[in-house]
Amino acid sequence: MSISLRKTGPLAPGEALTLIGGVPLGRIVFTENAMPAVRPASHLVVGDVLVARSHDGSAVVPPPGAGASGEGARETVVAYQADDIDLGSRLGWSVVVTGPATAVEDPDEIEEYAAELPPWTESQGEGSGQMIRIDPGIVNGYRLSED
Amino acid sequence: MSISLRKTGPLAPGEALTLIGGVPLGRIVFTENAMPAVRPASHLVVGDVLVARSHDGSAVVPPPGAGASGEGARETVVAYQADDIDLGSRLGWSVVVTGPATAVEDPDEIEEYAAELPPWTESQGEGSGQMIRIDPGIVNGYRLSED
Repeated sequence: MSISLRKTGPLAPGEALTLIGGVPLGRIVFTENAMPAVRPASHLVVGDVLVARSHDGSAVVPPPGAGASGEGARETVVAYQADDIDLGSRLGWSVVVTGPATAVEDPDEIEEYAAELPPWTESQGEGSGQMIRIDPGIVNGYRLSED
Repeated sequence: MSISLRKTGPLAPGEALTLIGGVPLGRIVFTENAMPAVRPASHLVVGDVLVARSHDGSAVVPPPGAGASGEGARETVVAYQADDIDLGSRLGWSVVVTGPATAVEDPDEIEEYAAELPPWTESQGEGSGQMIRIDPGIVNGYRLSED
């Protein structure tokens, strides 16, 4: 390979949120049955909150009524990752947002977010339980640059 | 949006490994300080094992000598995800491999894998502790298709 090694420079949290808000796709990272799990998702940044809609599978955050421990059972810590890295030049960025996630339950909010995050798959069309709000408690990102 | 909803069809494990082996970049998903963590990585499929080299940061698998509990401390369960989804057509695939990961420690193996997974960043050039072998105990994947 004749491509030089890239430098990795950290992104400020605000810049990282701006970058992640500028791409439509990412991945939700969470714990499922005590194992690391990851699922492609669509997302948008609303103020300083990240709203994500997963593309397939069961709920990332247990839906209302799941479990017996009440409200607390419906919050879980997730990481959300998106990147835009050019395979040719090896330039780009990667951002990871980590924080507590809750299912969006308010019908008006669900409708508002669904308008900007339309379902991609038929299974998504059947329900909206996978729309989740992530509080970006920790924002980490880096840029791959030439110097 | 005028794009129809896509169907998600499961991929057989062999097909999923072939697809993930055909792209150079993915993400290692693991647990760090009891929190979900994710990091971009390069990878290749060697036989039925996935070898990955992360792009930045500390070791995913504790290196030799870390911790006091011996050999067992150097294995951890990770997930590895890659996808190839076209934003325009919304067609493509996503694959997640989940299984035990260990650091590659044999110098000959490290050299062999490093030849196919050259470092991208200057920090990677300083060491090879981030080269890990993932046993794909669970392989999940789906294809987004028109019908």
